[in-house]
Amino acid sequence: MNVSDLGEFGLIERLAKAVGAERPESLIVGIGDDAAAWRVDGAVVLATTDTLVEGVHFLLDLTPWADLGWKALAVNVSDIAAMGGEPQYALVTLGLPPQTPVQGVDALYEGLQECAREYGVAIAGGDVVRAPQVVISVALTGQTDVDADGSPRLMRRDAARAGYAIAVTGTLGRSVAGLRRLKEGAPAEDRLARAHLRPWPPLALARRAVQLGVPCAIDVSDGLLQDLGHVCEMSELGAVVRAATVPLSDELRDAYPDDALALACAGGEDYELLLIAPRETLAALGSEVSVIGEMVESAQRQPRVVDESENEVRLPAAGWDHLRT
Amino acid sequence: MNVSDLGEFGLIERLAKAVGAERPESLIVGIGDDAAAWRVDGAVVLATTDTLVEGVHFLLDLTPWADLGWKALAVNVSDIAAMGGEPQYALVTLGLPPQTPVQGVDALYEGLQECAREYGVAIAGGDVVRAPQVVISVALTGQTDVDADGSPRLMRRDAARAGYAIAVTGTLGRSVAGLRRLKEGAPAEDRLARAHLRPWPPLALARRAVQLGVPCAIDVSDGLLQDLGHVCEMSELGAVVRAATVPLSDELRDAYPDDALALACAGGEDYELLLIAPRETLAALGSEVSVIGEMVESAQRQPRVVDESENEVRLPAAGWDHLRT
Repeated sequence: MNVSDLGEFGLIERLAKAVGAERPESLIVGIGDDAAAWRVDGAVVLATTDTLVEGVHFLLDLTPWADLGWKALAVNVSDIAAMGGEPQYALVTLGLPPQTPVQGVDALYEGLQECAREYGVAIAGGDVVRAPQVVISVALTGQTDVDADGSPRLMRRDAARAGYAIAVTGTLGRSVAGLRRLKEGAPAEDRLARAHLRPWPPLALARRAVQLGVPCAIDVSDGLLQDLGHVCEMSELGAVVRAATVPLSDELRDAYPDDALALACAGGEDYELLLIAPRETLAALGSEVSVIGEMVESAQRQPRVVDESENEVRLPAAGWDHLRT
Repeated sequence: MNVSDLGEFGLIERLAKAVGAERPESLIVGIGDDAAAWRVDGAVVLATTDTLVEGVHFLLDLTPWADLGWKALAVNVSDIAAMGGEPQYALVTLGLPPQTPVQGVDALYEGLQECAREYGVAIAGGDVVRAPQVVISVALTGQTDVDADGSPRLMRRDAARAGYAIAVTGTLGRSVAGLRRLKEGAPAEDRLARAHLRPWPPLALARRAVQLGVPCAIDVSDGLLQDLGHVCEMSELGAVVRAATVPLSDELRDAYPDDALALACAGGEDYELLLIAPRETLAALGSEVSVIGEMVESAQRQPRVVDESENEVRLPAAGWDHLRT
């Protein structure tokens, strides 16, 4: 058996089992959420890591170096936002072929630093290694608020309850549509291409959500249905998504009218957030989020997408698995 | 210009400059030491990251999977030890080709977990991505002691003073000799090969050193002379190393009698520590460390190796740069 038979999530589960037995008392959230969380003195520290590999996550001829730097940090900010935390310090590992142009690396640092400034992150260290292709791996730490009684304010994948509404920030499907546009020859300045190359995780909105008491969130990195599926599994529930309420941008509808819903449901890398909470809690977030469905009791730990008549909508096979080929 | 012209350290310096302007108040140590350090509440958190790339840092046919897992964590423990801290939580990123055998990954996890248990580390998260070759990147956090007045107990590269003695833990050169033995066909059980495949950072000794007030340390990862050179640069001093006092193991002398000193001075991946402090402070560490020289005022920010008559000993070109080819 090789790792492509097991898939990314099978492999992560295997690692979680291998290490799960030993759990120090200070650990609040371990493997399996957007970020880990543990106590340090009176505070709670968050940490996450995400890696972009040339030829797997990006193609250098479609990706300006500065955008690559931005994205490498932004995808980690998205994880900290999904936990409800404030990002703080990043460690940046660059794997570079020796013939990489220094100009490219300079632009990559600029993009990184732009994203760091935007989200209040400081780059505190890192590592540079030789590699056969460009690899950029960021580890990002942060902190979350702690109540007077010592309990941390966190949004967790396992905190959904039946009847909670599911909301999403922004619109979905633009990133995967932007990638398609780039492959069709669109320039990096194309608006959908920008969504793919420079994701903007909604950190301020996530901070408001956690302060309002939203208990459950996940970022949309692998595609709406797959990421919502993780919440279903961790919370031991099913979910219903109403197709007509999934937010689609005009650009997406214009560019790919026939595939817009499929791209929004199955496309990855939106770096928007799913926020899952009682309907009235989400209402306090106003028009910045769209309610797209609710969590339900169900043996089936997968979201169902339904039309106005509650009939299931058939969508192409969904989601992104980093190890399946 | 490409990155091999600039080299690893040129590139790190460039990154440090790009991000150096913005330094939050809570940051104590940023880019340029073994680990970063910052304040969280009343505590001080440390973080470091190190990456092993197949074909660059290891060859799969010479490296048992379990040893690879051990080493990927151990090299990070070494960084936290060099700061005087206690390691705590690790994030593990695996880049894997889809055809990687699951058995191999299981063994890698076992080695990781063995090392984690040995050093009191908990694996709190990570990431699995597809990659054209095996890449294992670990980000490790820790904490250091804080005195009653709030000042952290840290060993820093820039804290050497002229006249301080230089001590080293263990013996040097065994790892690079072990690699040579493996390439000559020795089995992974060979004692020098073990030193290469399973480094044991002297964490307990480092903790005693920081508690005794040793102000300056670095781990020996790129080779004695190169790593001591970093201390020289950061502390704006020179250094003298007395060749006859460099600790060599009997195995090393037996295996490579003619090259033993050169391997000890220029070979990398020992994951021992250089401890730099007033001679009487180091004396309190007893026979577990060897004093090999002292820091001196000098415009030349490079260590000089001298014989009993104070004549310079000529050694082959030294050290390991991850980007030069």
